[in-house]
Amino acid sequence: MDNIGILFQFNSFGESHGHGIGGVITGMPSGITIDLDFLHAEVARRKGGGKFSTPRKEDDCVKILSGVFDGISTGMPIGFFVENTNVRSKDYNNIKDIFRPNHADFTYFHKYGIRDYRGGGRSSARESVARVFAGGLAKLLLREFDIQILSGITAVGKISSQKTHHNKDDFEYARKSEIFALDKEIESLLQQEILEAKKNGDSVGASALICVKNAPIGLGEPLGYKLDSILARDLMGLNAVKAVEIGDGIESAKKLGSNNNDFINHNGFITNHSGGILGGISNGEDIIIKVHFKPTPSIFLSQDTIDIHKNEVKIKLQGRHDPCVGVRGSVVCESIVALILADMLLLNATSRLENLKKIYQTT
Amino acid sequence: MDNIGILFQFNSFGESHGHGIGGVITGMPSGITIDLDFLHAEVARRKGGGKFSTPRKEDDCVKILSGVFDGISTGMPIGFFVENTNVRSKDYNNIKDIFRPNHADFTYFHKYGIRDYRGGGRSSARESVARVFAGGLAKLLLREFDIQILSGITAVGKISSQKTHHNKDDFEYARKSEIFALDKEIESLLQQEILEAKKNGDSVGASALICVKNAPIGLGEPLGYKLDSILARDLMGLNAVKAVEIGDGIESAKKLGSNNNDFINHNGFITNHSGGILGGISNGEDIIIKVHFKPTPSIFLSQDTIDIHKNEVKIKLQGRHDPCVGVRGSVVCESIVALILADMLLLNATSRLENLKKIYQTT
Amino acid sequence: MDNIGILFQFNSFGESHGHGIGGVITGMPSGITIDLDFLHAEVARRKGGGKFSTPRKEDDCVKILSGVFDGISTGMPIGFFVENTNVRSKDYNNIKDIFRPNHADFTYFHKYGIRDYRGGGRSSARESVARVFAGGLAKLLLREFDIQILSGITAVGKISSQKTHHNKDDFEYARKSEIFALDKEIESLLQQEILEAKKNGDSVGASALICVKNAPIGLGEPLGYKLDSILARDLMGLNAVKAVEIGDGIESAKKLGSNNNDFINHNGFITNHSGGILGGISNGEDIIIKVHFKPTPSIFLSQDTIDIHKNEVKIKLQGRHDPCVGVRGSVVCESIVALILADMLLLNATSRLENLKKIYQTT
Amino acid sequence: MDNIGILFQFNSFGESHGHGIGGVITGMPSGITIDLDFLHAEVARRKGGGKFSTPRKEDDCVKILSGVFDGISTGMPIGFFVENTNVRSKDYNNIKDIFRPNHADFTYFHKYGIRDYRGGGRSSARESVARVFAGGLAKLLLREFDIQILSGITAVGKISSQKTHHNKDDFEYARKSEIFALDKEIESLLQQEILEAKKNGDSVGASALICVKNAPIGLGEPLGYKLDSILARDLMGLNAVKAVEIGDGIESAKKLGSNNNDFINHNGFITNHSGGILGGISNGEDIIIKVHFKPTPSIFLSQDTIDIHKNEVKIKLQGRHDPCVGVRGSVVCESIVALILADMLLLNATSRLENLKKIYQTT
Repeated sequence: MDNIGILFQFNSFGESHGHGIGGVITGMPSGITIDLDFLHAEVARRKGGGKFSTPRKEDDCVKILSGVFDGISTGMPIGFFVENTNVRSKDYNNIKDIFRPNHADFTYFHKYGIRDYRGGGRSSARESVARVFAGGLAKLLLREFDIQILSGITAVGKISSQKTHHNKDDFEYARKSEIFALDKEIESLLQQEILEAKKNGDSVGASALICVKNAPIGLGEPLGYKLDSILARDLMGLNAVKAVEIGDGIESAKKLGSNNNDFINHNGFITNHSGGILGGISNGEDIIIKVHFKPTPSIFLSQDTIDIHKNEVKIKLQGRHDPCVGVRGSVVCESIVALILADMLLLNATSRLENLKKIYQTT
Repeated sequence: MDNIGILFQFNSFGESHGHGIGGVITGMPSGITIDLDFLHAEVARRKGGGKFSTPRKEDDCVKILSGVFDGISTGMPIGFFVENTNVRSKDYNNIKDIFRPNHADFTYFHKYGIRDYRGGGRSSARESVARVFAGGLAKLLLREFDIQILSGITAVGKISSQKTHHNKDDFEYARKSEIFALDKEIESLLQQEILEAKKNGDSVGASALICVKNAPIGLGEPLGYKLDSILARDLMGLNAVKAVEIGDGIESAKKLGSNNNDFINHNGFITNHSGGILGGISNGEDIIIKVHFKPTPSIFLSQDTIDIHKNEVKIKLQGRHDPCVGVRGSVVCESIVALILADMLLLNATSRLENLKKIYQTT
Repeated sequence: MDNIGILFQFNSFGESHGHGIGGVITGMPSGITIDLDFLHAEVARRKGGGKFSTPRKEDDCVKILSGVFDGISTGMPIGFFVENTNVRSKDYNNIKDIFRPNHADFTYFHKYGIRDYRGGGRSSARESVARVFAGGLAKLLLREFDIQILSGITAVGKISSQKTHHNKDDFEYARKSEIFALDKEIESLLQQEILEAKKNGDSVGASALICVKNAPIGLGEPLGYKLDSILARDLMGLNAVKAVEIGDGIESAKKLGSNNNDFINHNGFITNHSGGILGGISNGEDIIIKVHFKPTPSIFLSQDTIDIHKNEVKIKLQGRHDPCVGVRGSVVCESIVALILADMLLLNATSRLENLKKIYQTT
Repeated sequence: MDNIGILFQFNSFGESHGHGIGGVITGMPSGITIDLDFLHAEVARRKGGGKFSTPRKEDDCVKILSGVFDGISTGMPIGFFVENTNVRSKDYNNIKDIFRPNHADFTYFHKYGIRDYRGGGRSSARESVARVFAGGLAKLLLREFDIQILSGITAVGKISSQKTHHNKDDFEYARKSEIFALDKEIESLLQQEILEAKKNGDSVGASALICVKNAPIGLGEPLGYKLDSILARDLMGLNAVKAVEIGDGIESAKKLGSNNNDFINHNGFITNHSGGILGGISNGEDIIIKVHFKPTPSIFLSQDTIDIHKNEVKIKLQGRHDPCVGVRGSVVCESIVALILADMLLLNATSRLENLKKIYQTT
């Protein structure tokens, strides 16, 4: 139940303060050059940095354990693992019997009767290091077909960008921005929102935009495995995400069909309200996804909660936490989208007889 | 790829204007009384009615083909089928080579090289009759555990309810409302939005709220099969849905952690911003989901499009279409949520050793 | 749990004496001509005939319900159904509370607490009508690549063919033989075994050989989805099958490596002890499978058993049963192998980057 | 495609001469004491020993990486890894372009266009170290329900035990036997077969028997996931296995129904020809499986083969190989059966409403 994907499948394991985090990619086609520098750079991006992200310094040297020979993918499962370093489990001893508000502590404990309370254990955002490394492997496949996945932050707390369209320069800018801001006009305001929350021992929510460029027409399977379904599944499954939109998303619910339909001419679609997906299948336009993150549940203010014995207690967290988990979350979203696109690319390959004939050379 | 669910699995087949629509439920536990009146009533609710929905009159007599013996589920797959009646395929001959804007015509044609153009074929909302019948079977399982799924419409076009909390009376009201309106104060305004659009040959979007009451703690599997992930997957997969929110959804992205965290006391959670899901697992509170529908793509106004030969053409649709697909969509959402809850209920049963001991009677 | 296949997936539903038997094929590529005459001929072959098979006359007119448009597969799920005709449920009233020896009655009842006792319900060989129709659809795909699946009976009871190799003529002969005998020299002896058992109200076991010709190299996925694994799974899953062998099978356990290894020269493999599969992957040679069927459990002699109240009773069956279920079983084996080959053909298509490049036309 | 199981799922990764071999168990219920001594003992058993197995000395210290907290399973994925030690890859340089007869070299190379030739890479029996460790975890679950899995060797080459029934003492004896012989009367003859083959630089086949004691009634799902189907799948998938039998297996094909049916009295089944499985579901009797292994393909005699350029060459292997892979294979079979039983135990838990009511405490 922890694996995602059908043909390009990702499994992960590991806890925040255990031995480490690992994963397995099954279904990577053979013949792909495994660019380690690129993979390590992807993992580094996730770490975020400076005063806007967690002070926890992770030296994330992910090691590939299988599936690569002489630098090339063999088609076998690619296992990888990264050890947890700089672990300060004692930070958590004082909350071992207490449910942190809005954390998975409560549900894990009641579902399993036992939980690894150290940093949230399995439920920690720490797991995303495996997701990002796996997403990097997916990107190595996707770039063979010139499919690019871009992302950036559009809003933090009460500040939101008014730009409705973002060009390549915006995404280039976001890549270099310390908070991955897509709109440089409001970058400093977004930063203030984060620092303000941080100063108060609080946290703040954020919104990210992900854009897939150059996806071929035909990705997505009706009806149980639509492209938008699976994007929504795995993005909603990312820690702290509470809403997912495709294309115009919520806005489209307020519109008339005549304003929402994307008309077509000989050059293709004139508009892209649908966000590049029709009937659950990519239509060749940019795939546009918006993801909304709640504020990091870990705050340094006194909160009302209970312990496992139902005693009411006040909790005031220590430890090292992002004031705005959405910032680094946008990088993880990219990886998740990459994993899905890779799977869909493989799935679509066998959708029609003529595709199979190209492979099996029959005439 | 067309099936959803792991233990409580749903498959469907069929096209809008073919022989009919069918489905298979695999994994229904044995011993459940199959209440046919209830199942037929569910299907009838989906039809909507009167001037707010499609004039297509479907006499949807779904027939169970297997898996039930002497009125009780046997644990075997439950197959069912409903014939397409009142089919007027000729309505579609004039568009057989034309791509209707915002329909799946374009993507199906390019993915498969062939499409059943009659009423959208497989991509038609007609498929949801199977989903609703299957959801009814799921509800028969869920009601054995007193788990209820409620729904209603909160917004149409530019009109939206300002109520933030909805009680049982609201959902009771919605059930009887012709447009499933949750907020009686604005019901007539919502109706006007629909009729206005209809009068102009246009369509309009809408938003629905789904609420699960009395779900046990522990539903949902980390990390690939979280409850919120799977809800998002299958609700986003429903025709015309462009956004899905859990709990406070998008609003939570604008908040501070101190305002978004649900504090806990000895009575349980004091607030429910999280919508009853923490770490992807139900926490025992109401599960709150918001779903946003785009306007029906089928409108009766002239639109710019192309045919399969890339010639630019004007299209003006005929046929029978909902002016606001979201209205009936809310009923389908209920069914989808029921299917997922049933699957999660089964999956959670084996999460801990002591559960298994209860079943296998070892000591 | 009732579906098999990953990309080319088969689901079935239905009971022996219920409304009928149905199935769904998901993943059939688009663009394949659906040859109904061929499909009906496949179903007819399964019926066997004359004095060697069941007197139950099934008028098996399987009807396709979806997934085919203008005689061509659309890539959508192909649903199909055949009604149960000539049902004589009253034949079973006298055994409704009794467990027939070697039938699934005992296990179904204890697993589910309820069973459809009419002709074995879901556990009846009657289900294979769906499997054979689905296998026919798979064969329509396979024949586009000139992959052929042949079969025949090699042994009945104590009589067994001594031929170690069977050529195309043998399979041609088997196709026309009333008992699908591969070796005409012993056909009459095999017939006598069946008729002798039948005369005594008894039944007899049999062995079948299945041969796949012209399968491409590369079918099968390491390690969980090897070609031989999946063949063994679904063939062992067929009613009455108690053993499956690949290539030399059991004989190879008695040999030395020097006599069992298939040496290779520039023309290919010199021998085929391995039965066309190495490391779980097809090697381009004929794929050779042997399947062994127990005698039909339904016999007309008095047997000791118990009823659901644990009372000891004598049972003497009535009804209509094959004296040698293996005979018709060989046809079902062909269909099962076809379903697996189709799935493997699709799965293998994405195993390497260069295959994907052929499809997505990148350079 | 490399994972097996639905609820109790096993994934593996790694190659014979790469970094190591790893695996992930997903779906282990929480609350199970993880007995490391037992797990390491299981892995040690697989190594076999002395002059009857490979001289390769593997110091297999498998390390658990996740899913266990304070010595108890948490319900989270259990990842584990064992480094490859004593790797002598240079043994394989001389065969890097040559296809070893009866190895996966040929099929892997043609399927993927690249292969890790060092010791067979992914296709090596070395992978079974992960399978055995995972099987050990499954056994920890099974022993909570007193389900035992026993095994032993019944035949090597032309020597075969004539015993038709094996009691607990036989299995106890096999456990201690250097070649896991079930029948002490012929143990020395079996040893001679192995040593004779070894002396000649040859290898020899063998047969194993696996017996499951105390499995509850009801394990196995009709129709796609029958107990015998899945046992056949994963046992046939084990390296060198060429045939799988359930109960009387091939013998039953030679019998009359009156001699093959297991009659029942108030004490239960009088005989067990069916091997404890009826209709794909366990019936409470011992589950009896026979597995047949071909001789190790790696022999030290000159063999005809070709290289990747189709040049004919003679090959004479070096390296370290079992003269009779079946001996250690029997231990791996035990592990595979344990993995399947664990999965079936979980799957069966939700088969009927009353089971669910026991868990969810509704009345």
